Amino acid sequence: MYTYIVIMTDFSELFLKRRTIRKYSAEIVDETTLNELLTAGCRASTTGNMQVYSIIITRDAEKKRELAPLHFNQKMVTEAPVVLTFCADFNRFSRWCRLRKAEPGYDNFLSFMTAAIDALLVAQTLCIAAEAKGMGICYLGTTIYTADKITEVLDLPAGVVPVTTVTLGWPAEQPGQPDRLPLEAVVHNETYHDYSDEDLNSLYRDKEERKDSAEFVRENNKETLAQVFTDIRYKKADNIHFSSILLQVLHDQGFMKNK
Amino acid sequence: MYTYIVIMTDFSELFLKRRTIRKYSAEIVDETTLNELLTAGCRASTTGNMQVYSIIITRDAEKKRELAPLHFNQKMVTEAPVVLTFCADFNRFSRWCRLRKAEPGYDNFLSFMTAAIDALLVAQTLCIAAEAKGMGICYLGTTIYTADKITEVLDLPAGVVPVTTVTLGWPAEQPGQPDRLPLEAVVHNETYHDYSDEDLNSLYRDKEERKDSAEFVRENNKETLAQVFTDIRYKKADNIHFSSILLQVLHDQGFMKNK
Repeated sequence: MYTYIVIMTDFSELFLKRRTIRKYSAEIVDETTLNELLTAGCRASTTGNMQVYSIIITRDAEKKRELAPLHFNQKMVTEAPVVLTFCADFNRFSRWCRLRKAEPGYDNFLSFMTAAIDALLVAQTLCIAAEAKGMGICYLGTTIYTADKITEVLDLPAGVVPVTTVTLGWPAEQPGQPDRLPLEAVVHNETYHDYSDEDLNSLYRDKEERKDSAEFVRENNKETLAQVFTDIRYKKADNIHFSSILLQVLHDQGFMKNK
Repeated sequence: MYTYIVIMTDFSELFLKRRTIRKYSAEIVDETTLNELLTAGCRASTTGNMQVYSIIITRDAEKKRELAPLHFNQKMVTEAPVVLTFCADFNRFSRWCRLRKAEPGYDNFLSFMTAAIDALLVAQTLCIAAEAKGMGICYLGTTIYTADKITEVLDLPAGVVPVTTVTLGWPAEQPGQPDRLPLEAVVHNETYHDYSDEDLNSLYRDKEERKDSAEFVRENNKETLAQVFTDIRYKKADNIHFSSILLQVLHDQGFMKNK
């Protein structure tokens, strides 16, 4: 008697066991693998099938060194074999329109958001495709903080704005999985149900009682975990500063002409 | 007795064969399945593990009817068993900060973008997890066009802005897969290489020569495919109109206080 067991439809491990990878092995990401991931990424949904995004691949060591300070010298930028910058891009589409006797009207904030959404869906699809191959990724939120300088380093023309960056490679670490809030903290049925103080106490209890949270608070000489965020990691003054840079980039790259 | 266990590790079909699904069977999406998908979605990368997003589930027929015109009466809104609105949300996080003697500084454009990115990574992860189960999804780009009215219908408080909507269910169609531009159209090595007219002619040739493109141009009484986009589908006047609504929503929801 022969029993064949084929397991192939349960992808839940792929989603549930993932974690961000910040240390990569020396193994390169070959052209074929990278192209497979890019092809998978480009199958993501895109507004009106316009594909209003571009992906800039950084593999050159010198270019990584130029990008590194723009990502606050997070070491993944120079250590990962591949760095991918995902951009909202209405330049290509608008140029094609003009070449075809069509007058593009995409120099506005709505079009920036449409293109940013496109770019982010491609980014996340590529990341999941990479993780399905056993690779590791890390998102760099710093992209929108220093979009002005990234635009210069990557030679982005008007109509193109960097939205996020992903470092990619083969994992050389297996870090613990970070916590998440319980599902009921982020999910609302039919309408948004705003939180009472009791709700917040209950929803954040597990996070606050974690050993690593307590250490985080102590290391930073703070009284509460929330203060580590507001006073150290994501400060109001920094947010205001980077907001004004980012809005200026949208102006400079031609997305606020009509608003 | 012999047991063969085959574990499929090649997920490429999942990514490469996907297509948007706009017709759904009458089968419900049960609570367990939906919770699995939401849990998978929430494992997506999130800035500083802040999880600055919320997901509003619409299953109620009356609520779907209220949302439908805000999505230009696309029939998926009323026909899909589940409609999910993904929101940038700094309300919950800021309220938690205040409850913990921490002063939040997230009433600015940078924080909106941070939260929008968070929301979109969750959305796309949930969508791929759904497709891995054989389900079908459709993105509704209209969410950012009518964010003012969606905010009302879903009772979103200050600090919360809808960013995208996904309809979800079990497929009742298998439509053809739409074309994509060749990879070299959207990928740049090291720096952005702007397009010559010849590049654009070559990169858009296949798309323009497709039978469905030609029909699209004829049906719309236009001369070129690009004109269908600029004159009919994504018009300048509409973009400007919806831009100003969306920027007003960011003001009204408190994301432009400091910029």
